[in-house]
Amino acid sequence: MKNKIKIGLIGLGTVGSGVYKTLQNFDNIEIVKIAVHNKKKKRNIENLDENIITDNAYEVVNDPDIQIVAELIGGTEPAFDLIKTAIKNGKHIVTANKELLAKHGEELFNFAQEHNKVILYEAAIAGGIPLIMPIKTILAGNKINKIKAILNGTTNYILTKMDVLGESYNDVLVEAQDLGYAETNPTGDVEGFDAAYKITTLATIAFGKRIKLENVYREGITKIHPEDMKAANEMGYKIKLIASAELDEEGNADVRVHPMLVPKSKTLAHIDYVTNAVTLSGHPVGEITLSGPGAGEFPTASSVVGDILAIVSEIDKTDYILPMMRCNHNEIAKMIDISETKNKYYLSIKAKNKMGVIGKIGTACCSKRAQRRLCPNNGNY
Amino acid sequence: MKNKIKIGLIGLGTVGSGVYKTLQNFDNIEIVKIAVHNKKKKRNIENLDENIITDNAYEVVNDPDIQIVAELIGGTEPAFDLIKTAIKNGKHIVTANKELLAKHGEELFNFAQEHNKVILYEAAIAGGIPLIMPIKTILAGNKINKIKAILNGTTNYILTKMDVLGESYNDVLVEAQDLGYAETNPTGDVEGFDAAYKITTLATIAFGKRIKLENVYREGITKIHPEDMKAANEMGYKIKLIASAELDEEGNADVRVHPMLVPKSKTLAHIDYVTNAVTLSGHPVGEITLSGPGAGEFPTASSVVGDILAIVSEIDKTDYILPMMRCNHNEIAKMIDISETKNKYYLSIKAKNKMGVIGKIGTACCSKRAQRRLCPNNGNY
Repeated sequence: MKNKIKIGLIGLGTVGSGVYKTLQNFDNIEIVKIAVHNKKKKRNIENLDENIITDNAYEVVNDPDIQIVAELIGGTEPAFDLIKTAIKNGKHIVTANKELLAKHGEELFNFAQEHNKVILYEAAIAGGIPLIMPIKTILAGNKINKIKAILNGTTNYILTKMDVLGESYNDVLVEAQDLGYAETNPTGDVEGFDAAYKITTLATIAFGKRIKLENVYREGITKIHPEDMKAANEMGYKIKLIASAELDEEGNADVRVHPMLVPKSKTLAHIDYVTNAVTLSGHPVGEITLSGPGAGEFPTASSVVGDILAIVSEIDKTDYILPMMRCNHNEIAKMIDISETKNKYYLSIKAKNKMGVIGKIGTACCSKRAQRRLCPNNGNY
Repeated sequence: MKNKIKIGLIGLGTVGSGVYKTLQNFDNIEIVKIAVHNKKKKRNIENLDENIITDNAYEVVNDPDIQIVAELIGGTEPAFDLIKTAIKNGKHIVTANKELLAKHGEELFNFAQEHNKVILYEAAIAGGIPLIMPIKTILAGNKINKIKAILNGTTNYILTKMDVLGESYNDVLVEAQDLGYAETNPTGDVEGFDAAYKITTLATIAFGKRIKLENVYREGITKIHPEDMKAANEMGYKIKLIASAELDEEGNADVRVHPMLVPKSKTLAHIDYVTNAVTLSGHPVGEITLSGPGAGEFPTASSVVGDILAIVSEIDKTDYILPMMRCNHNEIAKMIDISETKNKYYLSIKAKNKMGVIGKIGTACCSKRAQRRLCPNNGNY
């Protein structure tokens, strides 16, 4: 029997545990070291060998035996330095870190390419849904020019509950926090940061041009009222937090995250609770929609393990593994600022029920100043 | 500039034309020979070089310059012999031929493996939807044990129209034939043969065990009445022709194609007209649904070209290309016959409106003989 491929894990939280358990099914793979934050924490893993656990992540990235490092801690530091050190030490990387990729993807991919190593990150976007690898392989013949996606399970759960129960944002948030679907500080999810990280990297891959996070318009769901939900339903729509990216004919990119009114005829309108979904449009394929669990121990592990298996399948056979999975573009996308775009809007206005109020609202909306100041709240799906 | 990879096409019909046009965008690929049935046929392709057209497909598979052959004619002969000859002559194969794979897949894949060549076939199942390559690569860490799919656009179009318009099967069929969505002899589609070919290969890949076509139960849509559609809607279902494959805990496979009542809470209930969709369930990923165009010139070309690009990406770099895309199982699945399964049924009974008729129907249904004779018509989703 040939040698096992040696893996190091950084992080043994929800995702790390799922990866550990799933990799036990593969007898050509051996996890030789795992870095954790707190060695004493009780973990729901059977037969975990205490001897491979360390609280110093540099022991993983500096271990000369390890061929693949899976970084599963999230955040920019120390993940950024750990990954670079691992690459410098000759290891391929699998990561689930959407924030790191959105903020430092360009530097990381260039660094990996210089060292002839791959960074795979299927788990960073839409959890268990096959997305990055299909775009880079079987869809490689396409020019993708439009993405509409539900990429954040927490906000989709809150919006679905608000829609179904007619309850307020705040009430549903508390319930979501109790169930573990929302964090104690929910800002990263409810203000759209998480979805913005994901669409930044997804659009970069799909368009073949680098999208800059700072040019991605972002607006969360905290201002949505149950009355808006009801009005949307009556008009034939659902309110969803949509991560959207479009490329116009001149190649300019319009990338944004904000609540939108999605027509009930669209698949995305029916993606409820913590499920994620991505609709890609391009030529020659047309429009395809991929949906499934966007987070969770096992769905995310499916993607991390898939990436690991892809590296394992070629690591012994060629010195230039997975050519299709490499970063194949250096161009930075020209971005359209949202203030220069035309959008349809849904406006909810509180007014006194008296003569002349409709006329005044109409007049106010027609002023140039009002038109410039309107931000896209719901609309433009 | 390095040498271009040389491609031969067999077939220049709808799919072949889409492949030809799409490959013009790739300057590392050259189509050097195309076999057609009738050289004189007018084709909707600009700047087609007449000198590369032949009406003898063996000129393609015997051409020593050609490295990849795309077989796009369908049917078992001459496709079977052409592909074997091409493999013998050292070429990799891309095919869209679902019938050939369902009937002779085992022999073809073994033959290819003996000659260290790959056969890729993304386009054979669900047209443009990324399916085979994702299952074999990014989902490789999963044990998939359930597939529910809409794999035939013609029947889904007919069922959707019957549902929306309340019209009869025969009326909608004629309209579908006029629009080119159904063939003059519609048997292959409406009796479920096409879907049976596709689920045979799809289940073989997903389960990692070879499914035999002759063990796949098959029933078409010709006996469905508008009244059934109405009744289904009232009960909260849609009638869809579902290709289903399940693996029980002992590893026995239950694979079948027949109309089913799909609850409106499921994504598949909302897949309408010619769109295809596949729901895969397994561990660790959970349940994912992939949907999109199941046929057509360009969507199908997307998959053929994706397969070609995958081969091209590795053909010069290693002598054992695309290890994950190889056939990796020899086991033949133990199949459960439909007569040994338990199913829920929807029964539509015409009876005279007189005293005692309900009682007689009830009694008739309880007899052992009746239970043995019932075929699953709609149910068991």
